[in-house]
Amino acid sequence: MQEYSKSKLNRVKRGQNRANYDVAQINAILDSGFIGFVSYVYKGNAISLPMAYGRKDDKIYLHSSQANRMLLSLLEAGEMSMTVMLLDALVLARSGLHHSVNYRSATLFGTVKVLENDKEKEEALECFMDHMIPGRWNEIRPMHQHELDRTLVVEMTIKTASAKIRDVGVNDEPEDESLPVWAGLVPLKQVALSPISDEKLNKDIQVPNHVIEYYNMHK
Amino acid sequence: MQEYSKSKLNRVKRGQNRANYDVAQINAILDSGFIGFVSYVYKGNAISLPMAYGRKDDKIYLHSSQANRMLLSLLEAGEMSMTVMLLDALVLARSGLHHSVNYRSATLFGTVKVLENDKEKEEALECFMDHMIPGRWNEIRPMHQHELDRTLVVEMTIKTASAKIRDVGVNDEPEDESLPVWAGLVPLKQVALSPISDEKLNKDIQVPNHVIEYYNMHK
Repeated sequence: MQEYSKSKLNRVKRGQNRANYDVAQINAILDSGFIGFVSYVYKGNAISLPMAYGRKDDKIYLHSSQANRMLLSLLEAGEMSMTVMLLDALVLARSGLHHSVNYRSATLFGTVKVLENDKEKEEALECFMDHMIPGRWNEIRPMHQHELDRTLVVEMTIKTASAKIRDVGVNDEPEDESLPVWAGLVPLKQVALSPISDEKLNKDIQVPNHVIEYYNMHK
Repeated sequence: MQEYSKSKLNRVKRGQNRANYDVAQINAILDSGFIGFVSYVYKGNAISLPMAYGRKDDKIYLHSSQANRMLLSLLEAGEMSMTVMLLDALVLARSGLHHSVNYRSATLFGTVKVLENDKEKEEALECFMDHMIPGRWNEIRPMHQHELDRTLVVEMTIKTASAKIRDVGVNDEPEDESLPVWAGLVPLKQVALSPISDEKLNKDIQVPNHVIEYYNMHK
């Protein structure tokens, strides 16, 4: 098992029994998610904003317009962190204290750089779209050069990371287990609904296989 | 319409057409969500972590154990920001550039203080649980004093905020609309699955109404 090294930055302090540093588990969380919360410091304040991302090996790809305040700020700092969380269930206990949620989360720390080379930018954007919905990149209209030029593509290299996972049942105090209070889980899941074709679409164009496969995997 | 004042902190720079500062809309996003990403500065690094929250008027309630590094750091700073995002659809365009997601997000900025008074702490925890699953607070075992004592309850007062919402269809370049490429939306939704009773539960205890109502509203 390959693990990230632990430092003050990524060591999980609370709930250590739920923490791990396993690269494969962290990658599995990243690949199940799609939106990460990227945080940055703006005039002394920490702000976090959601961004879609792609992953390849230890690289995370983000993109935006060339004038994105957050990405420009991260590039100036040269470092960033990102957190991804997948919510799996409400955990409803007999006491308030033991209410919880089941979830999988990963927090990444690493360095960032801007990609300048067109080929690298396109490969990063392909990785990004493949992460959003596999198989789509080769079916859409190729990018125009002026579109590539106005797109800021940022590559994060993951230097260290941690995961927290809670995936067990209710954990009440033993003396509470006989109370006449219902306890249990309400599983939560993000699902896809039926694709809705653009109203301007030529009626001869069918929903393509990659969209049907996405829907079938997430419905 | 009541609006938050705009400052450099909360003014949305990119995608201003999707931004608003309407208190009612921001509250609606907060009330539809349940997990917020709270960000803080740790040794010069911005880190954001997911936390469940409750809202009442302009107050956000968070809680943790008394030793939570993030909340203690926020209390020392006296300020915090939190972002909530609800993902509504993949927006699949004919060109890569116009791929997007439909979403509702709110970013809050405000002051924080710890609640010390037991009555205030309990009311905040009731608000928190009511936000998680309405109707449960009065059905569970009352808190023990030692449980209340070891719980850190933090109250954020929202000072300013912004929302970003994208809720429209595909927005391709006009010259791309006749391309033989499928375009459209894949709606996404977080749903609840059937409640699962704790295996230690007395078999006479039925799933209560508040859990059935939650399930029916989210299935």
